[in-house]
Amino acid sequence: MSGRQQLISAARELLGPNAVVTDPANIATWVTDWRGRVHGAAPAMLAPASTEEAAAIVTLAAEHCVPLVPQGGNTGMVAGATPPGDGSALLLSMRRMNRIRAIGAGERLAVAEAGVVLATLHEAAAATDLRFPLTLGSRGSCTIGGLASTNAGGTQVLKFGTMRALVAGIEAVLPDGSIYDGLTDLKKDNRGYSIDQLLIGAEGTLGVITAVALRLVPAIASRAVAWAGVASPAGALDLLRFLEANTGSVEGFELVPQDSLRLVLDHIPGTRPPLAGDHRWQVLVEAATSDPGFDVTAEMQRLLATALEKRIIDDAVIAASEAQAEAFWKIRDSISEAERAEGQTLAHDISVPVAAMPRFLVEASAEVERSFPRVVASGFGHLGDGNIHFHVRAGSHAAPDWYNQEGEAITRFVDDLVTAAGGSISAEHGIGQLKLREFERLASPARLHALRAIKQALDPLGIMNPGKLVP
Amino acid sequence: MSGRQQLISAARELLGPNAVVTDPANIATWVTDWRGRVHGAAPAMLAPASTEEAAAIVTLAAEHCVPLVPQGGNTGMVAGATPPGDGSALLLSMRRMNRIRAIGAGERLAVAEAGVVLATLHEAAAATDLRFPLTLGSRGSCTIGGLASTNAGGTQVLKFGTMRALVAGIEAVLPDGSIYDGLTDLKKDNRGYSIDQLLIGAEGTLGVITAVALRLVPAIASRAVAWAGVASPAGALDLLRFLEANTGSVEGFELVPQDSLRLVLDHIPGTRPPLAGDHRWQVLVEAATSDPGFDVTAEMQRLLATALEKRIIDDAVIAASEAQAEAFWKIRDSISEAERAEGQTLAHDISVPVAAMPRFLVEASAEVERSFPRVVASGFGHLGDGNIHFHVRAGSHAAPDWYNQEGEAITRFVDDLVTAAGGSISAEHGIGQLKLREFERLASPARLHALRAIKQALDPLGIMNPGKLVP
Repeated sequence: MSGRQQLISAARELLGPNAVVTDPANIATWVTDWRGRVHGAAPAMLAPASTEEAAAIVTLAAEHCVPLVPQGGNTGMVAGATPPGDGSALLLSMRRMNRIRAIGAGERLAVAEAGVVLATLHEAAAATDLRFPLTLGSRGSCTIGGLASTNAGGTQVLKFGTMRALVAGIEAVLPDGSIYDGLTDLKKDNRGYSIDQLLIGAEGTLGVITAVALRLVPAIASRAVAWAGVASPAGALDLLRFLEANTGSVEGFELVPQDSLRLVLDHIPGTRPPLAGDHRWQVLVEAATSDPGFDVTAEMQRLLATALEKRIIDDAVIAASEAQAEAFWKIRDSISEAERAEGQTLAHDISVPVAAMPRFLVEASAEVERSFPRVVASGFGHLGDGNIHFHVRAGSHAAPDWYNQEGEAITRFVDDLVTAAGGSISAEHGIGQLKLREFERLASPARLHALRAIKQALDPLGIMNPGKLVP
Repeated sequence: MSGRQQLISAARELLGPNAVVTDPANIATWVTDWRGRVHGAAPAMLAPASTEEAAAIVTLAAEHCVPLVPQGGNTGMVAGATPPGDGSALLLSMRRMNRIRAIGAGERLAVAEAGVVLATLHEAAAATDLRFPLTLGSRGSCTIGGLASTNAGGTQVLKFGTMRALVAGIEAVLPDGSIYDGLTDLKKDNRGYSIDQLLIGAEGTLGVITAVALRLVPAIASRAVAWAGVASPAGALDLLRFLEANTGSVEGFELVPQDSLRLVLDHIPGTRPPLAGDHRWQVLVEAATSDPGFDVTAEMQRLLATALEKRIIDDAVIAASEAQAEAFWKIRDSISEAERAEGQTLAHDISVPVAAMPRFLVEASAEVERSFPRVVASGFGHLGDGNIHFHVRAGSHAAPDWYNQEGEAITRFVDDLVTAAGGSISAEHGIGQLKLREFERLASPARLHALRAIKQALDPLGIMNPGKLVP
């Protein structure tokens, strides 16, 4: 019996038969990545229900030298939770560990197990008049463990930071099966290297996160969602600077090119343009307050009126209702879907310094379109974080296998531009499998050496999520 | 010629003769720790003026297998920058790397070299109408590199976090002499493990930090400093919760027991009690705003009046002038000095969960005083962070060598209480040399194993600050 088969048998005994899935039909969803691009294989999916069970599984995996691929909601963008195609690894599903262990108003902390779905945490926080401020499109499926393991970002990073800033402590099973308990609710703790911070963004390659202590903030009392037209990305950044100088209430600031808006209007039923005229660039602004006595809508009206007077913006409208606010967000959230409906699209999740982004966006788009005739390049998203989803679309006459034919060359071209601008080829999606080769090509030797040394030191057998993150 | 002598010769050639100090009289200050408790020895102090020079020195040190002890302002509390007593290591002074490379209003970032003194950065930020919010008593001597290497805290952590939250990027020389350049000003970057976060708080054991990108915030427009009397630590926490529920402007919240106040009034010339009556516990509250249109004093008056009505506090006064505000802070900042004037004191920088601190403080003090007759135990400091400086004073009749005789037993007793309460034996000072044995005694095997594995992986020769942080 192979090590894998021995591990599967032992897991059945340990976890119970229902927690060990071997039927290929039931595993199929979980061995393919979110975007359906990478197809892996695994002879079994093991689903521990507690930290102790997870530790027992990892201990057995180390004994049998069988690699494990930790997985939460399987919503990652870089196939970081997709097993290798040769079936050499088992899936370690964290979805049964879905208890919120504690949530308290006093400390403004929640302790959530790895498998808690983000939307569930949002609801639990709201029930105690608090809020976990990180949110993103896949909130109905993605899990806390996955969010921490990928240092997820989302739309409110501008004000609240990424997971790295919101995690107060981590509990994890390390690759030797030992339990690391960093799940304190200490605000200050300087006992050696931060293992917590090392595990955040490690994509499960240094152990599997089993629970996370998370910082909460006061619930939103009211919000204002505005849509503004500007002449250029530089104008959008001017608007952000103007708002930042005059209020602390801006939480979201998303850039939308006219071209992306048009695609959404074309392909997504029920969407309407927020502004009457045409504007080459548009911005969604979300401001919020936790103070019931503060009129955030009036503040936004006043600030946008001044911005209009100062000609920072060309036009603006504030959503008159929650439904209209949701409609504005729907436009932003539907861009990727609309692009897919239009045709083949190559996505790049990149960042450059915030101040450099407007120019980068204009120049990089032009260079890509010049070098790869008939493609359309454009960027949208988190301008305030210097993080743009820079997408390149095939022209309407592109070959059906354009993505496979041209993709690599275009991505290398974009990544070179980003690197030359001092930016990152992965702002928020991580490295996973999909960016591994580009990361190896472009990272400094010092960084690669440090990564490899850390991986080798903590996972000498290479059983935790092999083939991800560390080139 | 020994490896050390070869390194010193090579350094003279490389850095110039003035950057290599071998005269024992000129080194003496730097081989003794800030509190004068640990006396080390070093045959030379090398002072590179640039990252390239620092890298060249580390490369040579690795070749000759000579340990280096990085040092900034030498203001640490745990002898983390004090060389071993056998003279086996050289001091690597970072104080000549004292340029502020960039400071900008647009990005609200500063890039400071390791040797920049904190007060200098404060001034430079103020000159651009910005502010670096971290501050502490040694601001006139401590350096940015040291603050990052120790994940320093200070008095404004409540609102702005420790260095970990304020660092946007790190440049460092790794133990093999390679330069790690994480000095991007990217807000989002998910390319592998965070080497930045690993170096923060590593006390120079994984490399030497050469420059740091720091997040700035808008300058303070006005502040209000209040002093309140409360019945108990629990009452102090009630006040904090009440303030937090009603305003976002509280930045500092320091607990001062009556006993500490009395010591300050006895020993520090020119100090006066802020309140008329006696109060067993007192609190210094600092609120600040960057909005010139916001009257933070009026807000604090209103809130403290309500707190008085609700009997959360017994009395309160708001400083009527900047001079009075400074006088309030002087009381808080003079507690350690007053204790030293009173007699021998044993200091413990500890944290427990914020909500647990009031009870811990009362019970731990009583237990210490019961177990060690004639000592006085009390805690003061950052109640809002769950971080108290828990000090044990010898009675007035204590033997002159009380500290050496009793110190270890008392510290073990306190550390056991802290550990039992789920707390940290080092909230902000770090491990250095002084807490190494207690850390080893009390840390979990998983944590110790991870620390040792990381240290061994990144510094296999053990040349970076040996004998610190990793037991």
